[in-house]
Amino acid sequence: MTAFTTTRRVEFNDTDAAGIMHFSAFFTMMEQAEHELLRSLGLSVIQQDAEGVISWPRVAAQCEYRGAARFEDLLTIDVTVARLGQKSVTYAFRISREAEAVAEGSITAVCCRIHPDRPMESIPIPPAFREGLGRYVADSDAT
Amino acid sequence: MTAFTTTRRVEFNDTDAAGIMHFSAFFTMMEQAEHELLRSLGLSVIQQDAEGVISWPRVAAQCEYRGAARFEDLLTIDVTVARLGQKSVTYAFRISREAEAVAEGSITAVCCRIHPDRPMESIPIPPAFREGLGRYVADSDAT
Amino acid sequence: MTAFTTTRRVEFNDTDAAGIMHFSAFFTMMEQAEHELLRSLGLSVIQQDAEGVISWPRVAAQCEYRGAARFEDLLTIDVTVARLGQKSVTYAFRISREAEAVAEGSITAVCCRIHPDRPMESIPIPPAFREGLGRYVADSDAT
Amino acid sequence: MTAFTTTRRVEFNDTDAAGIMHFSAFFTMMEQAEHELLRSLGLSVIQQDAEGVISWPRVAAQCEYRGAARFEDLLTIDVTVARLGQKSVTYAFRISREAEAVAEGSITAVCCRIHPDRPMESIPIPPAFREGLGRYVADSDAT
Repeated sequence: MTAFTTTRRVEFNDTDAAGIMHFSAFFTMMEQAEHELLRSLGLSVIQQDAEGVISWPRVAAQCEYRGAARFEDLLTIDVTVARLGQKSVTYAFRISREAEAVAEGSITAVCCRIHPDRPMESIPIPPAFREGLGRYVADSDAT
Repeated sequence: MTAFTTTRRVEFNDTDAAGIMHFSAFFTMMEQAEHELLRSLGLSVIQQDAEGVISWPRVAAQCEYRGAARFEDLLTIDVTVARLGQKSVTYAFRISREAEAVAEGSITAVCCRIHPDRPMESIPIPPAFREGLGRYVADSDAT
Repeated sequence: MTAFTTTRRVEFNDTDAAGIMHFSAFFTMMEQAEHELLRSLGLSVIQQDAEGVISWPRVAAQCEYRGAARFEDLLTIDVTVARLGQKSVTYAFRISREAEAVAEGSITAVCCRIHPDRPMESIPIPPAFREGLGRYVADSDAT
Repeated sequence: MTAFTTTRRVEFNDTDAAGIMHFSAFFTMMEQAEHELLRSLGLSVIQQDAEGVISWPRVAAQCEYRGAARFEDLLTIDVTVARLGQKSVTYAFRISREAEAVAEGSITAVCCRIHPDRPMESIPIPPAFREGLGRYVADSDAT
């Protein structure tokens, strides 16, 4: 199992009047890492195919904060797949600054077919996603 | 000429590490006041009609900052229509805290018909918008 | 036990290209409700007292999404105190549109004394906060 | 005269329900490019020196939108210094996607000394900033 790793700098608009990165900005940072992982696989979180559009609405998100991040800190985000279900995926994120843990979180998203004229419906994860995400499944027993 | 007036509290996520409301948050606050003005007229910035959807993409926005706004400040936003053209409108905003000026800005938006299958196109402002916005035109000569 | 209840309209800047309120915006909405609850008690999440500043850094946040919220939806946020510890509080949030559940989440914050010249330290929750928050403790056994 | 050039990808949280990058996100993107320019000079927009802290509050910002930017677009931001005054600087930004112009804007910031116990005051731009920013002054007559 290997994590997908990327970096993000704490931008000024991420900070708040307590002088640190706002707790909500960790969620956008985690999502940006997820989308970058998908792009690295040649995929997108909003993917067009022959039948229309596949998207991944979020059903759960959580984060635990271990330390503060400050303006201009360069953070490392490690992404793994904590669970790859039939129709959903749970990404796990570890955000750190050098060796120090800053936050750990997760996002669970459901694979959905978007219909222009009726509600979207959950669908089995297509092979291209399943294969690509499989490389990052944390528990090797699951593969 | 009367201004449309609303209020917004500076939320913690609007602030930055300088301890004040981030300069970009003034633009979302101005836009929120614009949308509230339209709602007060029974209209929406994304309006469905018999032919489809009418929307108002922005072509210009600017703001001058007169003072700082801080967490939990209650700000007053006065909106007028600086210019009501054939296909575009320029809103003028004055943001203040009690008697004190905090910022002045403007947003210019173009009335557009959204097409699902080809680029949107600018259209003459429909009568319901023209009539409603006309009440807030700053220069009474223009009415 | 009574919930503290407030409302928020989904603003255009809260939405994303999927046409719905971005999942991260639920966290800022929950925090805004927390801060409004504190204001209703005559308190602030950044409170000055004789010894300096008391603040409440977040140690955990989570949200489960039950449905989508769209531009201009008027959402109701019910806040209760799921746990009132010696030095920390966990707020529980229920976000709904009319009778329909949209999201449920929680935020855990630790009461801290901010020192200008050394790291902040967690402190027992001061009486004014304990008394005020006690009114919203979900489990009446705890009071 | 050379522009400082950087890139930014349009993230999902930058988009809105119109399916494009929200107009306010251009301002945070411009500011991020400004801060990156300063870092490239070994400087920061919040700089500690022997006398305390120097910061650059914004007094004006504006943007004209030439086209829409969409999720995952890779944008190029060119930064020049449109005006380098005694105490203030105006940055000019050109945002493009491949050869196509997307937006042009500017931010004017004033060099200020931050005092812990009294209002900040504008000060002459220190030599390190003046020298570094001078490399990007658009009009070579001004140097």
